[in-house]
Amino acid sequence: MRTVEWHEGRVRLIDQRRLPWTVAYLELGDYREVAQAISEGAVRGAQAIGVAGAFGMALAAQQATPLDIGGLLEYLDVAAVILQKADATSRHLTLYLARMQRRARDETLGNVREIKFALLAEAQQIAAEDHAACQRIGKHGAALIRNGDTILHHGSGGGLNAVAYGTSLGILRTSHALGRRFHVLVPESRPLLEGANLAAWELHEAGIPFEIIPDSAAGYYMRRSEVKLVLIGASRLAANGDFTACIGAYSLAVLARDNRVPFYAAAPLSSVDPQALNGDQLPQGVRDSREVYAPFGTSLFPEGYPVRNPAYDVVPQRYLGGIVTERGVLYPSFKDRLAELLNVPVLTEPS
Amino acid sequence: MRTVEWHEGRVRLIDQRRLPWTVAYLELGDYREVAQAISEGAVRGAQAIGVAGAFGMALAAQQATPLDIGGLLEYLDVAAVILQKADATSRHLTLYLARMQRRARDETLGNVREIKFALLAEAQQIAAEDHAACQRIGKHGAALIRNGDTILHHGSGGGLNAVAYGTSLGILRTSHALGRRFHVLVPESRPLLEGANLAAWELHEAGIPFEIIPDSAAGYYMRRSEVKLVLIGASRLAANGDFTACIGAYSLAVLARDNRVPFYAAAPLSSVDPQALNGDQLPQGVRDSREVYAPFGTSLFPEGYPVRNPAYDVVPQRYLGGIVTERGVLYPSFKDRLAELLNVPVLTEPS
Repeated sequence: MRTVEWHEGRVRLIDQRRLPWTVAYLELGDYREVAQAISEGAVRGAQAIGVAGAFGMALAAQQATPLDIGGLLEYLDVAAVILQKADATSRHLTLYLARMQRRARDETLGNVREIKFALLAEAQQIAAEDHAACQRIGKHGAALIRNGDTILHHGSGGGLNAVAYGTSLGILRTSHALGRRFHVLVPESRPLLEGANLAAWELHEAGIPFEIIPDSAAGYYMRRSEVKLVLIGASRLAANGDFTACIGAYSLAVLARDNRVPFYAAAPLSSVDPQALNGDQLPQGVRDSREVYAPFGTSLFPEGYPVRNPAYDVVPQRYLGGIVTERGVLYPSFKDRLAELLNVPVLTEPS
Repeated sequence: MRTVEWHEGRVRLIDQRRLPWTVAYLELGDYREVAQAISEGAVRGAQAIGVAGAFGMALAAQQATPLDIGGLLEYLDVAAVILQKADATSRHLTLYLARMQRRARDETLGNVREIKFALLAEAQQIAAEDHAACQRIGKHGAALIRNGDTILHHGSGGGLNAVAYGTSLGILRTSHALGRRFHVLVPESRPLLEGANLAAWELHEAGIPFEIIPDSAAGYYMRRSEVKLVLIGASRLAANGDFTACIGAYSLAVLARDNRVPFYAAAPLSSVDPQALNGDQLPQGVRDSREVYAPFGTSLFPEGYPVRNPAYDVVPQRYLGGIVTERGVLYPSFKDRLAELLNVPVLTEPS
């Protein structure tokens, strides 16, 4: 099962809006349909969106009719704009669209046909790299989990957010495959219930024991010393290790520290934005209040009641025990180590 | 508007299951219907349930046909057992049923007719005392709120949990009546959404500005320094000031301390159990998983997914800035002051 893949000349996506009830696939033969699938939430999570965008560019190249390179490049530039518009804040989408455009402009490619082949190969390569990064994150993080542990897992680190394996959820997969016995508490993650619907579905499919809890019950289990590790899929990281994750992550960080529970984030290094000096410089945003009062078309309370629906929490790096990346588990302080791994100069905040 | 009252020989209750959509009343002419209304959640919150039980006893006395005192007392004892069964853990129900039974046995009452009158008067007195306590709590707590404040309000402190005014929500009512301008954030309080449905409805009716937030977003607003006060309705207090409240209260306490936001609980002194030395000796309990996956009959995720649904958080008193009671705002340490107000010897935990 792949969240996003190339299949018989089309882009195939799991339609995440229909999970956990139905496993349905979208098979898209037009890059504009890929953009629509992203903007409508059929595919979610920065990595999966980025990879879908790369395949969307490969699809656009197949669709393009121009006979000369200049015409093809123009067509692809338009496609990149349309695909980026589907999610203006996805770092991976921005990165991978730019990479596809660079590849199309590679001077060693001599004609339209070669560019088309090269773009499909590049999208496949991006997907393969994302997948390999997730598997390495799983391997590096597996040592965090011991037999008998209860792990609280939160955030966008499932296989549905990547090509297949997931980051924080990949750590659970690898530990499970290694025969470790553990148990996962999954906060339901209101408003859209990604925990209860998507993470729980993945754990169920993987045969990993789990229980769903209301978001507000996480503290209850930490206070009773039942939780041995909090594991969070980070959406994006700043240069100092601060990160954004699904709303609720900050509360879990504070609760974990107060209860002396180790708190780890997982993310590929592609999620680090070295231009953002700290978490407050990462994009955050507010989402539609309809998600809160009518998450699945059913009104939970009257529409006239005012609602605030922040999308992401910023979690300061001082709460983190470590960050699990494809290059290993990083420990504080994160800034120098991230700069070293990303091969960028260490930026310092103005004092 | 009264949550619970005596009306033309019947017990009248707001049917809280139909809020916020419809304001409907149950008019009950049989004490067994009062028990059913309690057990089915038409009336909620320890104080409201206790007062409903007292009126249920008055109703039982009207219903009883025995011509002698002994027969009436037997009938009332059976009624008390049936009413207590409707909510085995409600402290106020236990207290008030016992008080009604004591009143019925008052030797100055000479016949069945006098006992019937006395029991109705006693239930009215209990309701009046509860209401007066709430209004005094409102008055004592009003000073906590300043113009321009954003207050995060959580828990079972609404008028629907009492006779009418509420405890923590009564503080908001009084401040509002005094002309203070403030704004309330209401965590929706999954699984049953008492925040989004009941507290929000009361604030809406009272004309107090509010916004509903997902439970997981409370930390977000505290980290941004938007919240100036966290106000919680306590369900029950232990002798040392530890208390239980709706699930999520402990997380808010930890977040408030980490962000240096004052955190206050409100409750009448009748909510203090002097026999419970600390919070872990207060009743807690786990509720039906159906509340989580199908809160209003609509399944939010598959029934087969395992769920844990703890009903109450225990909040250690060390997180509390103060406790607002009808006798004033108490400050730490709470144990001696609570013992003094309750006129009980200070109990010490075994070392």
